[in-house]
Amino acid sequence: MAERLKRSGLVGELSAEFAGTMVLILFGCGVVAQVVAGGALTDPAGGLGDHDSIAWAWGLGVTLGVYVAARLSGAHINPAVTVALAVFKGFPWKKVAPYAVAQTAGAFVAALLVRWNYSEALAAADPGHTIKTQGVFSTLPANGNTNLPVYEWGAFRDQIIGTAILMLLVLAVTDLFNTPPGANLAPFVIGLIVVAIGMAWGTNAGYAINPARDFGPRLASFLTGYGGAWRDQYGNLYFWVPIAGPLIGAVVGGAFYKFFVGRYLPTAEPEPPGRMPVPEE
Amino acid sequence: MAERLKRSGLVGELSAEFAGTMVLILFGCGVVAQVVAGGALTDPAGGLGDHDSIAWAWGLGVTLGVYVAARLSGAHINPAVTVALAVFKGFPWKKVAPYAVAQTAGAFVAALLVRWNYSEALAAADPGHTIKTQGVFSTLPANGNTNLPVYEWGAFRDQIIGTAILMLLVLAVTDLFNTPPGANLAPFVIGLIVVAIGMAWGTNAGYAINPARDFGPRLASFLTGYGGAWRDQYGNLYFWVPIAGPLIGAVVGGAFYKFFVGRYLPTAEPEPPGRMPVPEE
Amino acid sequence: MAERLKRSGLVGELSAEFAGTMVLILFGCGVVAQVVAGGALTDPAGGLGDHDSIAWAWGLGVTLGVYVAARLSGAHINPAVTVALAVFKGFPWKKVAPYAVAQTAGAFVAALLVRWNYSEALAAADPGHTIKTQGVFSTLPANGNTNLPVYEWGAFRDQIIGTAILMLLVLAVTDLFNTPPGANLAPFVIGLIVVAIGMAWGTNAGYAINPARDFGPRLASFLTGYGGAWRDQYGNLYFWVPIAGPLIGAVVGGAFYKFFVGRYLPTAEPEPPGRMPVPEE
Amino acid sequence: MAERLKRSGLVGELSAEFAGTMVLILFGCGVVAQVVAGGALTDPAGGLGDHDSIAWAWGLGVTLGVYVAARLSGAHINPAVTVALAVFKGFPWKKVAPYAVAQTAGAFVAALLVRWNYSEALAAADPGHTIKTQGVFSTLPANGNTNLPVYEWGAFRDQIIGTAILMLLVLAVTDLFNTPPGANLAPFVIGLIVVAIGMAWGTNAGYAINPARDFGPRLASFLTGYGGAWRDQYGNLYFWVPIAGPLIGAVVGGAFYKFFVGRYLPTAEPEPPGRMPVPEE
Repeated sequence: MAERLKRSGLVGELSAEFAGTMVLILFGCGVVAQVVAGGALTDPAGGLGDHDSIAWAWGLGVTLGVYVAARLSGAHINPAVTVALAVFKGFPWKKVAPYAVAQTAGAFVAALLVRWNYSEALAAADPGHTIKTQGVFSTLPANGNTNLPVYEWGAFRDQIIGTAILMLLVLAVTDLFNTPPGANLAPFVIGLIVVAIGMAWGTNAGYAINPARDFGPRLASFLTGYGGAWRDQYGNLYFWVPIAGPLIGAVVGGAFYKFFVGRYLPTAEPEPPGRMPVPEE
Repeated sequence: MAERLKRSGLVGELSAEFAGTMVLILFGCGVVAQVVAGGALTDPAGGLGDHDSIAWAWGLGVTLGVYVAARLSGAHINPAVTVALAVFKGFPWKKVAPYAVAQTAGAFVAALLVRWNYSEALAAADPGHTIKTQGVFSTLPANGNTNLPVYEWGAFRDQIIGTAILMLLVLAVTDLFNTPPGANLAPFVIGLIVVAIGMAWGTNAGYAINPARDFGPRLASFLTGYGGAWRDQYGNLYFWVPIAGPLIGAVVGGAFYKFFVGRYLPTAEPEPPGRMPVPEE
Repeated sequence: MAERLKRSGLVGELSAEFAGTMVLILFGCGVVAQVVAGGALTDPAGGLGDHDSIAWAWGLGVTLGVYVAARLSGAHINPAVTVALAVFKGFPWKKVAPYAVAQTAGAFVAALLVRWNYSEALAAADPGHTIKTQGVFSTLPANGNTNLPVYEWGAFRDQIIGTAILMLLVLAVTDLFNTPPGANLAPFVIGLIVVAIGMAWGTNAGYAINPARDFGPRLASFLTGYGGAWRDQYGNLYFWVPIAGPLIGAVVGGAFYKFFVGRYLPTAEPEPPGRMPVPEE
Repeated sequence: MAERLKRSGLVGELSAEFAGTMVLILFGCGVVAQVVAGGALTDPAGGLGDHDSIAWAWGLGVTLGVYVAARLSGAHINPAVTVALAVFKGFPWKKVAPYAVAQTAGAFVAALLVRWNYSEALAAADPGHTIKTQGVFSTLPANGNTNLPVYEWGAFRDQIIGTAILMLLVLAVTDLFNTPPGANLAPFVIGLIVVAIGMAWGTNAGYAINPARDFGPRLASFLTGYGGAWRDQYGNLYFWVPIAGPLIGAVVGGAFYKFFVGRYLPTAEPEPPGRMPVPEE
C-alpha cells in the first residue's frame, strides 16, 4: 500500500476522503431530511420512511462512501477511525489532521447540498429553522426529545460506547489475520455495522460516532440559518459531545479488540478465503 | 468485451437492455401499485408495504435487471448511464440512441404488464385514473403532494443531484482500478445504491434518476387511460424533468468521480480481490 | 453433476428437496402466523412485523432452503421450477413427479409444525379456523379481501406473470454463461428475487408462485380444522389457481429468458468471476 | 484448525467467545431497549424502530459477533451450538463447559453495558423495573403478553423447534461438503438465519434460541433492579425454558440435518466455490 500511496500522493488520499465522506453525508443527512421534513409534510401517517430507513440509509451511505475511497485512502471517512488506526495500526500521525480536515470538508459540502435540495421542505416543515429540524444535520441528546432525560454526560457516555463498538468491529472485519469478508465485500459489512448501531445505539445521542459526520453538517446548518446549531434542546453547548466521545470511543474499541481478539490471532494469513473455519475438522 | 459483443451482436445487446429494463420496471412500478393501490384498498392501516418497500423493491429491481443483462450489454438499463459511459468510458456514441430506445421499450412493456395486472386495483382505488395513482407509473414533483412546495425547477435540481450521486457510485463500484465488489456481486451493490437513493433522495421528485424508467411507463399510462400523464399536480408540463435532469446529472456525477477519485487511481489493477486494502500494513 | 447425483442417488435428492422446501415453509407460513395471528393479538398497533417482514422472511426462507438442498438436488424446492428446468435445461422428466411429491411433502410437514407451534395464537385470533387465518397457510385472491375485486381469473393471470418473473430471474442468476453471483452466493440473490416479488407482486394472489408452497400447507390446514381451505372468500374453488398458474408461468418465464437473453449468450464460460463486465474497456 | 488452536490456546478461544457473544448482546439487548424504552418515550407513534428493527439488529449482531470470533474459536457464541457441534462434529466435550461460561459472561457484560447506557430510558419508561421492560434483557412467553395464551410448555416447545431450525441451517451453511457461502461470507448468511427466525418464530417465546443470550442478560437485569427476572407474567419460574429448550432443539436440528442431508453428501469437497451447481448440465 505504501508504494501505491506514493503514486497517488497525499492529495489523492485527501480527495478520496473528501469524496467518500461526502457520499456518506449525502445519504445520511438526506434520509433524515426526507423522513423528518419531507415525509412529515407529505404524509404524516406513513411518510417517506421511518427510523428503519434512517438506519439503513446511513449504513448504506457508509458502504458506498467506503467503496468510493477504499483504494486511495483506505476509506476511513471518520476522524475517530483515523485516530484509532494511528494508535493501533501504524497509520502515520502526520496524516491524521489532514485526513480529518478532508473528511469534515466532505461532510460540510454534502450537508450544504442537502440543505439546498431540501430547502423547500425544511422551510415548510420548520420555517424558523429551529431545533425541530436541527436533527437533519447534527445530533442531539435523546434526538432532541425532552421526555427522555439524557443530557451531555449521558450522550457523551453513549458516544464512547457506540464508537467503541464501531471501531472494534471495523478492526475485526478488516483484519487479515482474522476471517474478514472476501471478494471486496468488507465495505458492505462495514455498512451493516452502522445499520445495526443505528437500530440499537441510536436512542441517547443519535449515533454520530464520527466527529466529521457531526461537525461538518452542524457548521453547514449554522451558516445557512440554523442559529441554534451549537446547543441542545436545553440550551447547553453540545457540539463537543459528538467530537470528543467518538475520539475516545474509537481508541477504547480498538484496545478492546486488541486485548480480547487481536493478540491471540496467529500471525500467518488464514487459508484462502471462501470458507469459514470449522473447529476440529 | 469488444470481441464478445461482436459475437452476440447489437441485437443481443439491445435485447438484453430491453429485458433488463423490463425487469427493473416490473418491480418498480409493481411495488408502487401494490403500496398505493392494492395496499391502500385492502388494509389502510398497515397495507401491503410502505415507502421502505418501495425503496427496497426498486433497488432489488435494479440488481435483478443488471443480472439479466450484464454479460450481453453491460446492463446500463438507464439512458443517463449510457450517455455518461459514452462521455467518460468510451462507450460508442452510435449505440447510445439504440440503447435508449431498447431501455425505454422495456420499461414501456413492463408498465403495460403492471397496468394490466393491477387494473382491478387501480380502478377500485382511483376510478378516474387521475393523478392519484399516476405515481404508480411516472414521477411527480413532491410525489404529487401540494403541501411541499416543489415545482419543476426544484425537481429538476433534485434529479440532477440524485442522478449525479447514482452515476458517481456506479462508476466507483465498477471501476477495476478502484476496489469493486468481486464474485459478480456488483449488481447487488448497484441495487443498494438505488435503495439508498430512494430512502434519502426521494422527496422532491420521486427519484426517477432514469429517463427510460420515467418516460416508458408514463407513455404506457397515457395510452391506457391516464389522460393527465404529461402534467404535474399544478397542471404544468412535467414529463421533461425526469428526462433532462438525469441526463445532465449523470454527466455531472461522472465528472465528479473522475475529478475527485478516478484521476488519482493507479492504472495497474489492484491485488487479487478478496481483501480491502488497509493502509500502511 | 451427473456423476455426483449417482453417488447420492435419487433418495438423497428427494430428501434434500423435502428438507429444503420444509425450511422454506417453516419461515414462510411461520412469518404469516406471527404477523396475522400472534402480532395482531399481542400488539395491534405495531405487532410483531408487517407486510415487509412477510416479504423478507419468505425470501430468506428461499435462500436458506436453497442452501440446505443445493448440492444434492440443485434446490428447486418448487415444482414449477422443476418443470421449467425439464423443459429448458434437460432436467430428466422422469424425476419431475418424484421431486414435486418430495417438495409438497416438505411443505406439508412444515405447515403442520407451524400449525402446532402457533395453535394457541391461531385459536385465540380465529377460534373457528376460518378464512380469517387461512392465509397463514395458503393464498387467496386479493389476500382474502373483498374490497379489491380480484377473482380466480385475475389471480390466475397474476400467478402466471409472477412465476414467469421468478423463473426468468432464476435462470439469469444461475446461468454460467451469463454473469451469475459467485462465491456460492446465488442462493442469497435467489432469495432477494422472492423478497422483491413479495413487495411488488403480492397484491392479487399472495405470490404463491410455487404449487408445493401452496398445496402442501393448504392440505395441512384442511386436515387440522380449516374446513374451508379449498375455497376463496367468495366460496369458489380456488386451490387450483396457485398450482396451474405457476406451472404455466414458469415455462413462460423460461421461454422469455431464452428468447431475449439466453440465445445471444456466448457459449464459452465468462472470465473468472469477480468482475462485472464493463463494455469497451 | 487443531494446529491453529494450539497456537492461540484455550484462553484465546474463550476470549473470542466472550467478545463475540458480547457483540451479539450489545446489539440484541440494545435494539430492544431502543424500541421498547427509548422509542416509546420519544415518539409513541413511530418510535425509534419496531419489531423488524429487532429482527434485523439481532441478526446483524450474530453476523458481527461471528466475524469477531470466527478465526479463534469458530464463533459458536451460543452454548446450544457448542453442544450440538460436540454431538455431531467432534468438538471436544471438555471444552463445552468453558465455552458456555465464556459465552454467558460475554452476554452478561454486554447486558450490563446496555443497562447502564439505557438507564435513563429504562427508568423513565418503567420506573419500577418491572416485567414491562424485562423483555429488554430476557425472553418471556408470548413476549410478556397475556392475550396470547402461551405458557412454559408452549414456550418450551417453541424453543425446541426454533433452535432446531437454527442449528440445521448453521450446519447447512458451514458444511464444506454442501454448498456453503464463500468469500468468508458465511457469517452474513448466519445472521440472516436469525433475522428470519426473529420474523417467523418470535411470537411464543421471543426466540432466545441461545441459553447464554438469555441467562446472561437475565442475571444482569436481576442484579441491577429487576427483582422479577426469573419469573414470567404469570409468576411462574421461567428462566429454565430458554436454557433447556435450545439445548434440546440444537441436537434435534443437528440430527435432522444429518438424517435428511448430511449422510447423502459426497465426501469429496465440491468444485471451486463461485457457482451453484445446476443439475444435469
